[in-house]
Amino acid sequence: MNRPEKLLASVRPHIASRMEGIEPFHVVVLINRAKELEAQGRSISNMVVGEPDAPTPPLIAAAGIRAIAAGRISYTSSLGIAELRDKIAAWYHARYGVRVPRSRVIVTTGSSGALLLTMGALLSPGDQVLMADPGYPCNRHFVRTMEGEAVGIPVGAETAYQLSAALVEKYWTPKTAAVLIASPSNPTGTLIDHGELQRIHAVVKARGGVLIVDEIYHGLTYGKRDRSALEFADDIFIINSFSKYFGMTGWRLGWMVAPEQYIAPIDKLAQNLFISPSDLAQQAALAAFDPDTVALLEKRRDAFREQRDFLLPELRSLGFDIPVTPEGAFYIYANCERLTSDSYAFCWDVLEKAGVAIAPGLDFGNHLSKQHVRFSYPKSIPVLAEGVERLRKYLKK
Amino acid sequence: MNRPEKLLASVRPHIASRMEGIEPFHVVVLINRAKELEAQGRSISNMVVGEPDAPTPPLIAAAGIRAIAAGRISYTSSLGIAELRDKIAAWYHARYGVRVPRSRVIVTTGSSGALLLTMGALLSPGDQVLMADPGYPCNRHFVRTMEGEAVGIPVGAETAYQLSAALVEKYWTPKTAAVLIASPSNPTGTLIDHGELQRIHAVVKARGGVLIVDEIYHGLTYGKRDRSALEFADDIFIINSFSKYFGMTGWRLGWMVAPEQYIAPIDKLAQNLFISPSDLAQQAALAAFDPDTVALLEKRRDAFREQRDFLLPELRSLGFDIPVTPEGAFYIYANCERLTSDSYAFCWDVLEKAGVAIAPGLDFGNHLSKQHVRFSYPKSIPVLAEGVERLRKYLKK
Repeated sequence: MNRPEKLLASVRPHIASRMEGIEPFHVVVLINRAKELEAQGRSISNMVVGEPDAPTPPLIAAAGIRAIAAGRISYTSSLGIAELRDKIAAWYHARYGVRVPRSRVIVTTGSSGALLLTMGALLSPGDQVLMADPGYPCNRHFVRTMEGEAVGIPVGAETAYQLSAALVEKYWTPKTAAVLIASPSNPTGTLIDHGELQRIHAVVKARGGVLIVDEIYHGLTYGKRDRSALEFADDIFIINSFSKYFGMTGWRLGWMVAPEQYIAPIDKLAQNLFISPSDLAQQAALAAFDPDTVALLEKRRDAFREQRDFLLPELRSLGFDIPVTPEGAFYIYANCERLTSDSYAFCWDVLEKAGVAIAPGLDFGNHLSKQHVRFSYPKSIPVLAEGVERLRKYLKK
Repeated sequence: MNRPEKLLASVRPHIASRMEGIEPFHVVVLINRAKELEAQGRSISNMVVGEPDAPTPPLIAAAGIRAIAAGRISYTSSLGIAELRDKIAAWYHARYGVRVPRSRVIVTTGSSGALLLTMGALLSPGDQVLMADPGYPCNRHFVRTMEGEAVGIPVGAETAYQLSAALVEKYWTPKTAAVLIASPSNPTGTLIDHGELQRIHAVVKARGGVLIVDEIYHGLTYGKRDRSALEFADDIFIINSFSKYFGMTGWRLGWMVAPEQYIAPIDKLAQNLFISPSDLAQQAALAAFDPDTVALLEKRRDAFREQRDFLLPELRSLGFDIPVTPEGAFYIYANCERLTSDSYAFCWDVLEKAGVAIAPGLDFGNHLSKQHVRFSYPKSIPVLAEGVERLRKYLKK
């Protein structure tokens, strides 16, 4: 090997073109700084991470321990354990009155796995996917990873930060392959109107596209009954998760319900990209639908609701503008332009000076992101109250 | 919505162009048939699945149970728990005498996750990756998923079914971005010569490409000491797994060691595609490097070796041609052309008539795949002996 070649190699590392379009979670740097401050003895009011503090529900934990003790933790079918797929199907009947055959239920490595498989099976290079801006950042990056193009549609209070049939029609192009709706939404906590979702489905179907509905925060809604898109159609991709309502984040387990003709392609993609989801997590999740577990989860849901009911008026009284009351998930997306002209700088300043960790709008898209921050409230009310007091003092200065 | 549009939608489902290039594991259909036969009361000699029967090593199981009992199973850093990354780094020092900083160790959802991240971070559409044919089928499908082109290089006994520097030079094109070496290889169980691997590295480096070395069967070698590519260079992607040597298949945990300049891109890709690997599996894996665990795993390795030593001469005596003695993993890739002209039909016939399940060459590439079958031998010797007897009777007919 001669010198010029060596130089060439060092100045031209192979980096995929997709990597330019994929952003890190900006908030991770802020979270790391928060941990650093805590390590230095500072108390930090953490309203940044989208993860409840609660332990895995006891019956799920016990099922996991039994599975380990029984000895065999092996590869499973790439689509998941039949018994778990049946239980998920039964959940749709009990919860939504919908019959879903086992064949259409696919267990995945978190909803992340479900989104990867969905985009991988659907998108050819250049295909567009319409989605709300603000929205969960990974969604657009799954699309970019598969060489598709995520089209963020600016949404605001007038549509409860959700897409509408009119917006879908307006932004549809010959390259549009799919529309992604997330309800309840991360970061806004808002729900899509069920009738509007049906109208969006009709528009998408009429144009030969595919509708994907992210229902991973289902179960965590306050007031309205959850409505699944499966109640009105079976040609929709539904994404769900054991992480949020079921409290199993670190187990990495989710699921999807796919239209029948996509099962075979998704099966072969899942075989190749994942082999199978975690056997252990699946065996534990068999206890997720147990009535005692669900009773516990409903209590936790009620607590989240109380936390929202506490935090929401407090934030409004501090000067944050929250025009649409969030009815699901555990997030409040707050307009902060009365308090700052740059939410990213604001988040850093609030962390350093007030000891409060919140997420900048930047992580959720481009539309008015400098004017917004996200509060995550799956925390006890005293913890939230302390955060509010710190913000009040900070803002008075 | 009018009728023509409805028809249009139904005849034109969106399926990604990549899906045409991604094949299912053909053997899955055969495995399902084997299970069906077993459910009907037939005894099946299973030499098809690449997974040992042994339970999770006790200390790993106990660590998993402790983690569940402690309550918090959460998202971790996307690159993995620091303590586990340190233990993996220490393993490289203890096992290979190599110093690897924690920063370059990335914990993943199985080696599948590591391969997905590697190909995702490296490959732009059209980029080629050179790899041996036969080889592990998922490897080429990870490349296709990322819109790259896997170039299977026909290899045979003359190179122990491995690539050589000469082959890499011969097949290199301006579109070649990377070369993937798997040693020990699935399906052939053969190792690459350490000197040849260094020569390949020199060729790849001289051309500004990237070398990826799949070491997931390291630890399972019989006779020779494992040699990691990290012993001679730090600009290589190393893929490894807790599934095989460490016996943790169904926990879905693996790792990679990446060159320093790729850590940041892989971190942001991992954040977006996986959030994090399983916290529970990581906490359990903290016990994987315990001396007692390693002592147990070395015993299991010795058993695999005995099983290979039993099966290999038996297969040769049956008429299978195995020109290169496999020295690793738990596979024997056998030429069956003295026994059949179509290994796929042969595998099905052997299953139905002899009750023996083995994998057809078809799943491992195109090169002479009709002339080969793969035997998987992580089974007790009586189980293997029964399979051999059944084959002997079948072949005498």
